[in-house]
Amino acid sequence: MDVASLPGDPRFFTRLGPFPASRLAEVAEAELVCGAGGSPETPFRGVAPLQAATAAEVSFLDNRRYLPQLGETRAGAVILSPAFRERLPDGVMGLITKSPYLAWARVASLFHPPVPVRPGLHPSAVIGEGAELGESVEIGPFVVIGAGARIGAGTAVAAHAVVGEGVVIGERCRIGAHVSISHAVIGDRVTLHPGVRIGQDGFGFAVGPAGFETVPQLGRVVIESDVEIGANSTIDRGSMRDTVIGAGTRIDNLVQIGHNAKLGRCCIVVSQAGISGSTELGDFVTIAAQAGLIGHIKIGEKARVGAQCGVMSDVEAGADVIGSPAMPFREFFRNVAVLRKLAKRPDKETG
Amino acid sequence: MDVASLPGDPRFFTRLGPFPASRLAEVAEAELVCGAGGSPETPFRGVAPLQAATAAEVSFLDNRRYLPQLGETRAGAVILSPAFRERLPDGVMGLITKSPYLAWARVASLFHPPVPVRPGLHPSAVIGEGAELGESVEIGPFVVIGAGARIGAGTAVAAHAVVGEGVVIGERCRIGAHVSISHAVIGDRVTLHPGVRIGQDGFGFAVGPAGFETVPQLGRVVIESDVEIGANSTIDRGSMRDTVIGAGTRIDNLVQIGHNAKLGRCCIVVSQAGISGSTELGDFVTIAAQAGLIGHIKIGEKARVGAQCGVMSDVEAGADVIGSPAMPFREFFRNVAVLRKLAKRPDKETG
Amino acid sequence: MDVASLPGDPRFFTRLGPFPASRLAEVAEAELVCGAGGSPETPFRGVAPLQAATAAEVSFLDNRRYLPQLGETRAGAVILSPAFRERLPDGVMGLITKSPYLAWARVASLFHPPVPVRPGLHPSAVIGEGAELGESVEIGPFVVIGAGARIGAGTAVAAHAVVGEGVVIGERCRIGAHVSISHAVIGDRVTLHPGVRIGQDGFGFAVGPAGFETVPQLGRVVIESDVEIGANSTIDRGSMRDTVIGAGTRIDNLVQIGHNAKLGRCCIVVSQAGISGSTELGDFVTIAAQAGLIGHIKIGEKARVGAQCGVMSDVEAGADVIGSPAMPFREFFRNVAVLRKLAKRPDKETG
Repeated sequence: MDVASLPGDPRFFTRLGPFPASRLAEVAEAELVCGAGGSPETPFRGVAPLQAATAAEVSFLDNRRYLPQLGETRAGAVILSPAFRERLPDGVMGLITKSPYLAWARVASLFHPPVPVRPGLHPSAVIGEGAELGESVEIGPFVVIGAGARIGAGTAVAAHAVVGEGVVIGERCRIGAHVSISHAVIGDRVTLHPGVRIGQDGFGFAVGPAGFETVPQLGRVVIESDVEIGANSTIDRGSMRDTVIGAGTRIDNLVQIGHNAKLGRCCIVVSQAGISGSTELGDFVTIAAQAGLIGHIKIGEKARVGAQCGVMSDVEAGADVIGSPAMPFREFFRNVAVLRKLAKRPDKETG
Repeated sequence: MDVASLPGDPRFFTRLGPFPASRLAEVAEAELVCGAGGSPETPFRGVAPLQAATAAEVSFLDNRRYLPQLGETRAGAVILSPAFRERLPDGVMGLITKSPYLAWARVASLFHPPVPVRPGLHPSAVIGEGAELGESVEIGPFVVIGAGARIGAGTAVAAHAVVGEGVVIGERCRIGAHVSISHAVIGDRVTLHPGVRIGQDGFGFAVGPAGFETVPQLGRVVIESDVEIGANSTIDRGSMRDTVIGAGTRIDNLVQIGHNAKLGRCCIVVSQAGISGSTELGDFVTIAAQAGLIGHIKIGEKARVGAQCGVMSDVEAGADVIGSPAMPFREFFRNVAVLRKLAKRPDKETG
Repeated sequence: MDVASLPGDPRFFTRLGPFPASRLAEVAEAELVCGAGGSPETPFRGVAPLQAATAAEVSFLDNRRYLPQLGETRAGAVILSPAFRERLPDGVMGLITKSPYLAWARVASLFHPPVPVRPGLHPSAVIGEGAELGESVEIGPFVVIGAGARIGAGTAVAAHAVVGEGVVIGERCRIGAHVSISHAVIGDRVTLHPGVRIGQDGFGFAVGPAGFETVPQLGRVVIESDVEIGANSTIDRGSMRDTVIGAGTRIDNLVQIGHNAKLGRCCIVVSQAGISGSTELGDFVTIAAQAGLIGHIKIGEKARVGAQCGVMSDVEAGADVIGSPAMPFREFFRNVAVLRKLAKRPDKETG
């Protein structure tokens, strides 16, 4: 079989194993259902989607819409929730768990662990005076580390990244290729994907007699631990206070975060969303793709802002909003329905 | 005349020629209309817009709105469609073709061909073990090529690009400055503009007991031949299958393509549009600027999605949709009209 | 006190001073109100927001919503407008001016002036044949300057920037890390933040018999003096004429400017906005975040385009538009209100 048709192309991914079914169940924290012909010792060599898996792969089902594929799968085992255990085809082993997607993540990581850091300093790197590199750091080709910067143990800085003077990066971070960072303090286990921009000037200027005059941006960017930021996203430093990204928050590609913005813990910000200056998000807030938030507002914890939503005022904790301007989900879809109905009337009634 | 007022500033562009009118007609696959004073031997030295061209330049007309400029042009010749041939001013030669824009592209390329590849390996480049460079490749300053990567013959990799381990790039590609590529297989004649990000992790994580846990992204990015991708666009690799960009597709700047997305042949994706994970586009689909597509939907071939459109469900082949949520063009503009009418009524009627 | 709780973390910012109140008043062009206990000689050592400032810091008030914080501030002095002078708490000195934000910018710059250029050529930089570097330029690590390019006196080019062949950059510019520039002529005192892309091909292609054919992009990018462009923004060069950014214009992060677009003087373009090809903005136009303008339209001077607005046709000078499609602000909010009212009616009335 063509290696390319299965996940984990060996040109790009390491592969461990094979592992017995019992080991998968342990990692998945799942109940193992062996069925006919299977056993805890049955060996598995990788993961694959339902439609591509063979007897040597484990697959998963997390979405009811893929139930038909479960019926036809040739996978050796499938991770799925108790609700679907009766739908397992004959001869397919089951790994039953209430968190199939999490279990899948862990099983997939067992076969394909993250690329380990390769400690060492590439000879082409430029390291500023007084910069401190922790144990086992990896510094790639053409990296520039500014004077007085500190890189924590086990952190990898990929090719061409530029770390400004005085910047602090914690332990076991992954700084991607072509990232630039200035005026920032970064926690542990933070991942910045390629092209991320951290710490440049916020968009601040005053109207002077001869045009705009730049307002000094005197704050920093503080990124707490376990944050991940997607490719080419931009986070400006604060003007008078810090721009803060709370622990565990996940930010997708091409996202803009303005100066002084403050994101809580475990927020999700999907691609091409924008958060304007001085706006604050509570914990566990979700901002969907291409949504935009004006400045100086507050989004309560666990609120969810829909795709392309335009938020012009505070959003309560737990609220679901969508539309531009933002409104509750139900109101938005009611409006859409009402307008559709009206538009279908004969002309005289709306005339 | 100031060189800057005409296209093709010699500081930035090479210029061939002059060429006789007959040569232009041949390249344009156009009928040559000489009119009074012109001949097949009349020499031309370049191209210019209608309002700037002199007798030595050829211009073109592709849009009815610029007909007034045709009447006043001093161009030596104009490429235009048969519908406008009677509008040619006296003394201006015509190059008559049903495809004036295509003819223009070819004539302009005759005078200003693409910059040729300059074969050679800059001494500062870092080439990984086992990497294979084809014949006549150009590798610019500070380029990093990972171990085992393969670069096809005649491909140019500009300054600061980073090509990850195992990546395959075909022949006669143009990889722009500051591009990063990982986990990818790229065809022939592909152009990636500066700052493009290919192959980084998709946005995938599961909710664990202590926060989000990253789901391994085990697919690749497959870019077929003749694709062009604009500056600072981002294409994530697949999670379990590949992210695929079909042959001939054109992607503009700052576009986001999520993991597992699949674009057909000759699609057009305009700037700042976003295509979420696992969404599939048929062939010849157009996605206009700032449109957003949610994940796991299908867009039929030749469908057209309007600017800023928010697409939440499948779109049929050949359909034209716009609005957020997406609806047929006609319905959208009818809704706009109805709402405008209603808003103009006295208050009591809508009260 | 933790240095981090005040603006101007010494790891990232220089600090001058202390300065007496009289010096601040002079720089701010403000009237000094000493009140009880203050004097023109009272020393100040920095700036801080109202809620963080101590007696040694000067703060400012520019927005009525922060009046409660004025009442509680411990700042030594506050910059504010005449309208609020009566609200100054006892013992807090006042710097009274009709332009408090501008005054603030200047006072903050007094304490924390911009980082000076550090003249010199990093030994790793690659300078092309015939390139001209003015006096006192700073060229960072791994910078690439193309053949024949010209860099004006006092300009700083940060690490990893790539300046293409023949590009002209004026005096006292700041070119950020990882910027790429080609086919461009740039004025004086221009700031390009990290990852900006200037001068790549516009999105132009014609339909040929075997797929799309690229139309040569033969114009340039002209950036006039005193322009500032945010991180990861992209500006394509013109196809037949130039793409022009007028003097004093401020562009935020992740903005897209298409080929042949022309922006007037002192425009403001906020993050993630997009301006399509051949569209023209008069002077002092504001385009808010995530707005999109189609191609070939004109926006009159001092017009304001709201956030997420979709502009499909010309906008008159001085007009305020919002919505998608764009309409006057008043009409937009009236539509929103009407629709809300209709959606609340019992079903039979809209049925």
